[in-house]
Amino acid sequence: MNPRRDSKWWGWGDPGVEPELDEAALATLRERVGSLEPAPLAAGLEEFSLPPAQPLPPALLEAVGSGAVFDSAEDRLRHATGCGYADLARLRGGRLDAAPDAVLLPAGADAVRRVLDVCAAEGVAVIPFGGGTSVVGGVEPLRGEHSRLISLDLARLRAVEVDRRALTARLGAGLRGPEAEAALGVEGVVLGHFPQSFEYATIGGFAATRSAGQASSGYGRFDELVSAIRLQAPAGELCTLQTPHTAAGPSLRELVVGSEGVLGVIPEVTVRVRPAPAVHRYEAWVAESFEAGAEIVRALAQGPGLPDVIRLSDEEETEVSLALSGPRGAAKALFERYLRLRGKRGGCLVVVGVEGDEESVARRRALTVRALRRGGAAYIGQSAGRSWEHGRFQGPYLRDTLMGMGAMVETLETSHTWSRLGELYAAVGGAIRDAMAAQGTPGLAFCHLSHAYADGASLYFTFICRARHGEEVEQWRAVKRAASEAIVAAAGTITHHHAVGRDHAPYMEAEVGEMGVETLRAIKDQLDPTAIMNPGKLLSES
Amino acid sequence: MNPRRDSKWWGWGDPGVEPELDEAALATLRERVGSLEPAPLAAGLEEFSLPPAQPLPPALLEAVGSGAVFDSAEDRLRHATGCGYADLARLRGGRLDAAPDAVLLPAGADAVRRVLDVCAAEGVAVIPFGGGTSVVGGVEPLRGEHSRLISLDLARLRAVEVDRRALTARLGAGLRGPEAEAALGVEGVVLGHFPQSFEYATIGGFAATRSAGQASSGYGRFDELVSAIRLQAPAGELCTLQTPHTAAGPSLRELVVGSEGVLGVIPEVTVRVRPAPAVHRYEAWVAESFEAGAEIVRALAQGPGLPDVIRLSDEEETEVSLALSGPRGAAKALFERYLRLRGKRGGCLVVVGVEGDEESVARRRALTVRALRRGGAAYIGQSAGRSWEHGRFQGPYLRDTLMGMGAMVETLETSHTWSRLGELYAAVGGAIRDAMAAQGTPGLAFCHLSHAYADGASLYFTFICRARHGEEVEQWRAVKRAASEAIVAAAGTITHHHAVGRDHAPYMEAEVGEMGVETLRAIKDQLDPTAIMNPGKLLSES
Repeated sequence: MNPRRDSKWWGWGDPGVEPELDEAALATLRERVGSLEPAPLAAGLEEFSLPPAQPLPPALLEAVGSGAVFDSAEDRLRHATGCGYADLARLRGGRLDAAPDAVLLPAGADAVRRVLDVCAAEGVAVIPFGGGTSVVGGVEPLRGEHSRLISLDLARLRAVEVDRRALTARLGAGLRGPEAEAALGVEGVVLGHFPQSFEYATIGGFAATRSAGQASSGYGRFDELVSAIRLQAPAGELCTLQTPHTAAGPSLRELVVGSEGVLGVIPEVTVRVRPAPAVHRYEAWVAESFEAGAEIVRALAQGPGLPDVIRLSDEEETEVSLALSGPRGAAKALFERYLRLRGKRGGCLVVVGVEGDEESVARRRALTVRALRRGGAAYIGQSAGRSWEHGRFQGPYLRDTLMGMGAMVETLETSHTWSRLGELYAAVGGAIRDAMAAQGTPGLAFCHLSHAYADGASLYFTFICRARHGEEVEQWRAVKRAASEAIVAAAGTITHHHAVGRDHAPYMEAEVGEMGVETLRAIKDQLDPTAIMNPGKLLSES
Repeated sequence: MNPRRDSKWWGWGDPGVEPELDEAALATLRERVGSLEPAPLAAGLEEFSLPPAQPLPPALLEAVGSGAVFDSAEDRLRHATGCGYADLARLRGGRLDAAPDAVLLPAGADAVRRVLDVCAAEGVAVIPFGGGTSVVGGVEPLRGEHSRLISLDLARLRAVEVDRRALTARLGAGLRGPEAEAALGVEGVVLGHFPQSFEYATIGGFAATRSAGQASSGYGRFDELVSAIRLQAPAGELCTLQTPHTAAGPSLRELVVGSEGVLGVIPEVTVRVRPAPAVHRYEAWVAESFEAGAEIVRALAQGPGLPDVIRLSDEEETEVSLALSGPRGAAKALFERYLRLRGKRGGCLVVVGVEGDEESVARRRALTVRALRRGGAAYIGQSAGRSWEHGRFQGPYLRDTLMGMGAMVETLETSHTWSRLGELYAAVGGAIRDAMAAQGTPGLAFCHLSHAYADGASLYFTFICRARHGEEVEQWRAVKRAASEAIVAAAGTITHHHAVGRDHAPYMEAEVGEMGVETLRAIKDQLDPTAIMNPGKLLSES
């Protein structure tokens, strides 16, 4: 088994998927961000520059067996980054300053245990590696105080054990989203967890990063889907009981969920599953404005009728995403027809998805529709909704296209209460636009509201501007910093579902306070006393 | 303000509420547990024997002001126990071996801070005190390694600040259930948290113990209602951001919730609230058996239609609770009529409650009713349901009556997945009955299933037998131990919502493993380095 060779080494996913932009889309882009200069890859895989690997202790090879150690340049490179913009910019630039010394693929939890024991004894840093899809530097090859570093790829941890009566499933950490759903589908159940990274991200990664899928309103965020969890820490193993709930003290399950590899390895997770829905009904609506749309979502989240998926684009995202949707552009035509009929400009796209059996979809949709109509939204139809559903994992492919054209494209997200969401929206969007302009590359920043709760929602920003060739990472860092500082100033969370990784670690003190950081450090000291686990993530190196 | 003087010092609640059993109820009881010998109080409040108080450091009196220190025998006694059977048995016995040296009532969070600073510096143990309604020894006056001990009564922490737009409310720890609901009611919202202790328990206590109310299926358990929380620990303050969700690492909110006073004081909690429901529809059904009833609840929890309250009594609980319901016995007559019509014996009472506006109650009830009918249950009517709703906080009063008659009456609870719930039910009920018989006091053990989830439910056991006069606590301890060991052997949780306190602390290692206990200790060492906070609770003294 050759680790992670089935995707582009320099970008996202299947090398055969290369979306192109049509003339109209290119024109929109030119109008908004100026002329772009194509930015091809600086080097092929063969010429790629990686630092030399340090030799590993022989005991480590014995711990997993020699067939489970991969130290080729390609395997090291494929485990040296996540999939954020800055990662891909460095890969496209042909050079990385850091990479793990080798990739280990333990065959099961026992082998993980042996690896951790050797690494703790020998002082080898360990990065637990799931899908490698982090967009926040979650698998960045930082060594902390250690000179050697391995990437511990969990791809071989593939347990599947379904309890139909309790509707739970024990799933190995290494299963990717589609693999887990396929295995569950055999038993007629689904997990329903669909983050944009679904096709490559893994069960262990979902748990370690507190992932939230696009259907989190209906199926629950991943933290809500976890019924029991296991952590293999350097100091020993932590297991939580599988009961539907316990009041036995602070929640250790909630300590392991979100631990981002800094406390240990999550070899498996027991999750709640559901009977597979017979019907998926996705449809599109137009709200009169972002504010009016947000009021509709609030009404839905605070009353009955919150659908499984709801997603409200702001005016800018609506316009740009329709322009870039290209040949799939059924939505575009319908949207434009709607605007013509109403004699209006603007408007915000709302995607609504309800899943279940026919009766429950009808019943729940009726409640959703009532709130949409009350809020002044107009129905566009199912084709635009279906087009969103089918294209839901395509964003990262489009990013590759745009990066190849010479653009910087990045996303970030936060959340806040309904009382402060408008303030956060304005502050973060403004900070991003100002920072891009200050870099001499004015561009686009747009947003959608998703993951609606009774008390608030998340905001997901995308920004696009001309990349400064050779300075991509510095440029990105400046914009990212401005956005993060705006989030902190508005007391929003630094992340609703992308996790902390390396990029958000400097903001953890703003998030949880000094005592919060100290408490997390004390937990780490207990579980990982020699600090071998995923150095520099979650908590900045002290 | 005189602390906690408005309830019986020797029992539960309002001294004016004294339910009596009618002849039929007494006959049922005699038949099941044998003859009882009346057990009056051994001593009046004046003759009560308490250990002498240790003098406190003068700095402590300065920290709160002299009007906030109460050291009369009555105030010490009223803060020396919770409200479990063993607590009340000791109070009725006229003697306690331990009590706090004084009760302090800080006026606000600043005074709490000063108290903690002095106590940490001077080595004075602190028991945070909310309603004092713990049934697991949560406020037991254990001193740990310290010679002095105060009870820190939070009754004066009474903040109320409602955010109507986000449907959240910041509530002071000292508000009792009815006080919080009354304050929220002014704003047209409710919290919907109704544990049996509702009338005397406090917001801070709900958070510290992971309380779950009777309507938890609809409104959420208290841990689910907490949107942000604050902890004043000896080492400093920990605050979580108020956002609807965050993926920024392990959940510190979930560390503070359930911390049972061992990490610090929770001065306030921000909770999610809802518009007040216009309609409360409570009704009763009869299921053919406990198994058939459990299948109905499982179908509801795994499909649409789970009501806000659902509660399935086993055959024994149905029979005994109808017998003891006495003059309120509308339910009894209807139930018996049902059995006559069907020519059956047995049957299990199901209480169903749906709250909301008229339309949503009708819609949701229709789904519930469908599942009940499919599962073979028969409708008894609203009067029995209403009678349950109105009597929902009466259980502890009846316990006082039964204890006065010479009975031991105790409750305990656990939870498990649907796959293992039957096994747990049989094992725990059997262990309790065997242990009572082994004490020479054979008695009744019955159960209800409540707090239903897609993956499982909780089981709540009540047991009644003749008390062994003068040996009440030893007798209770033997039965409690047998039940706890049966729970552990079946891998159920030691507590679904009563918390850990002192009584369940010996079972924490079974619950979370050795590494779980070590991790909790590391957290405590960080936040409470001199171990002044609530000694001997949650974690056994090491």
